[in-house]
Amino acid sequence: MSENILEKVGYYLKNYNDFLIVGHKDPDGDAIGSSLALYKALSEFGKNAIVANTSKISDLYFFLDDTKNIKLLQNNERAQVIITVDSADFERTNLDKNYIKDKILINIDHHPTNTYFGNINYVMSQASAVGCLIYEILKFNDIPISSKTAEYLYLSILTDTGSFRYSSTSSNAFRIAAELISLGVKPWKIAYNIYESKKLTTLKLMGQAINTITTHYNNKLTIMYITQNMYKDSNTTADDTEGFVNIARSVRGCEVGALLREDKPNYIKVSLRSKDEVDVSKIALTFGGGGHKNAAGFELTGSIEEIKEKLVQAFSFLK
Amino acid sequence: MSENILEKVGYYLKNYNDFLIVGHKDPDGDAIGSSLALYKALSEFGKNAIVANTSKISDLYFFLDDTKNIKLLQNNERAQVIITVDSADFERTNLDKNYIKDKILINIDHHPTNTYFGNINYVMSQASAVGCLIYEILKFNDIPISSKTAEYLYLSILTDTGSFRYSSTSSNAFRIAAELISLGVKPWKIAYNIYESKKLTTLKLMGQAINTITTHYNNKLTIMYITQNMYKDSNTTADDTEGFVNIARSVRGCEVGALLREDKPNYIKVSLRSKDEVDVSKIALTFGGGGHKNAAGFELTGSIEEIKEKLVQAFSFLK
Repeated sequence: MSENILEKVGYYLKNYNDFLIVGHKDPDGDAIGSSLALYKALSEFGKNAIVANTSKISDLYFFLDDTKNIKLLQNNERAQVIITVDSADFERTNLDKNYIKDKILINIDHHPTNTYFGNINYVMSQASAVGCLIYEILKFNDIPISSKTAEYLYLSILTDTGSFRYSSTSSNAFRIAAELISLGVKPWKIAYNIYESKKLTTLKLMGQAINTITTHYNNKLTIMYITQNMYKDSNTTADDTEGFVNIARSVRGCEVGALLREDKPNYIKVSLRSKDEVDVSKIALTFGGGGHKNAAGFELTGSIEEIKEKLVQAFSFLK
Repeated sequence: MSENILEKVGYYLKNYNDFLIVGHKDPDGDAIGSSLALYKALSEFGKNAIVANTSKISDLYFFLDDTKNIKLLQNNERAQVIITVDSADFERTNLDKNYIKDKILINIDHHPTNTYFGNINYVMSQASAVGCLIYEILKFNDIPISSKTAEYLYLSILTDTGSFRYSSTSSNAFRIAAELISLGVKPWKIAYNIYESKKLTTLKLMGQAINTITTHYNNKLTIMYITQNMYKDSNTTADDTEGFVNIARSVRGCEVGALLREDKPNYIKVSLRSKDEVDVSKIALTFGGGGHKNAAGFELTGSIEEIKEKLVQAFSFLK
């Protein structure tokens, strides 16, 4: 068999019939978009494909036709080939070792920390989204990309680049997006469902959270918080705070944005985001947490005010 | 001379030496980006180029090197060729009829309402941004695009497509963006200066405004307001409310979002935005205002509560 990875993956897609496509726990737009794209393309190519995750998907994605076809992973699905998408390690997929042992496992991912756990691994850390990799696979192997498949690929790229904003946004991501538009994707339809379709309750919580913002060290550190009472007042839960930490970071001059959530009484979940050079994972580590350079977090018992004070201390190097 | 419009524009760019590039009043990212791109490319091509507007530019754009070179339009600049960008009619440019009469006027625009007021008119209503048209002109005529010129073109496309979201986002806009990234543009650098660099005072006003949101007709109409007191409390002005009406529209199920600003005591400026089918310009017209299908506005004397009531009445067809 060829050493070309695109050809290799294509060999399995063409010569086998039963596929299980698996994303990761709490799937994001990239996991959902890239697994649905593969599901759609394989189904339309005449294959039996099942798409499954270990957790329910957010109602944010219900506007996509095929979200109703995403199943809860049972580890007993009929499959010859299992394809995992956007999962850096085997644990993240929640697949059972016994279930997979007589099957072919294809691992498609773009995390630099990927552990190459598959029989075949198509891992490209420079890819803006797994959707870009699925696009390359389909294109190289002449598997048709319908307008629906294109829509799912587009969702993957749109969400994982933060609407083409993050530094991971490559020239290639734009080039693929151009192709997907030609195939019938309507950018506004996807964008407004993802970015302009907020629950009123979520928006009200956001308004309240914004009013808690304080800045420290000449705006370099920005802290925003959410209390138990604010959840109650606005009829929301922690699930509704997706993206809120980015609001803290969006203050002019800010280098680190922090969100403190009182998810349980006297129990605070802290999310940290930095814009450029500051490595927030180092700070998170000192509090027993972890993460990446620009996105990290930790959890602590205490009051909002106590944790805030500790945080201001910890970032005193921004002075 | 050739009938090819790109060649025609190129003829003047290559054979003349003194250029004045003019945007429009209260220039947006497209006017600023496309005029700076043309300014930079012509300057680097060995020409004398001046870029001018009739009003000062927002400090949002000060992160771009060449904003310091944008002058206030005097209508006495030395120029053989005047190029207007992103201006639908002559009035919008604030050029003086006497000043331009012995000069060549090139009109580059993408508004469907453009009046073809130039000696040469490169008007393409299907273009996502004027930046796309400038790119085509430079490319076709082999005028080099440096990384700085690319950055300005990218700003134009990014802002006029709302970060590649609006329905005007074409396949071609993505293709050009891909090229610009190859030329050295860093998407995150531009995006964070445009979208993640808010004044804290603006953010606080936003928080207050969000808390005023009411929805009507089963969320189809969303109304948000800003009072004189809110401006005072947050130390902001009307200039700081850019994009706020989009927050009103971002409520799930919303078809029309409205922002009511009490810019003077008892004097309300109303902005309307619709998502799809509702033509808000028709409603604006009945109040003596105007605009486009998805974006319109008007001004009225009265209290916030009075105008709100009138607005709810006017949109009763959403019931």
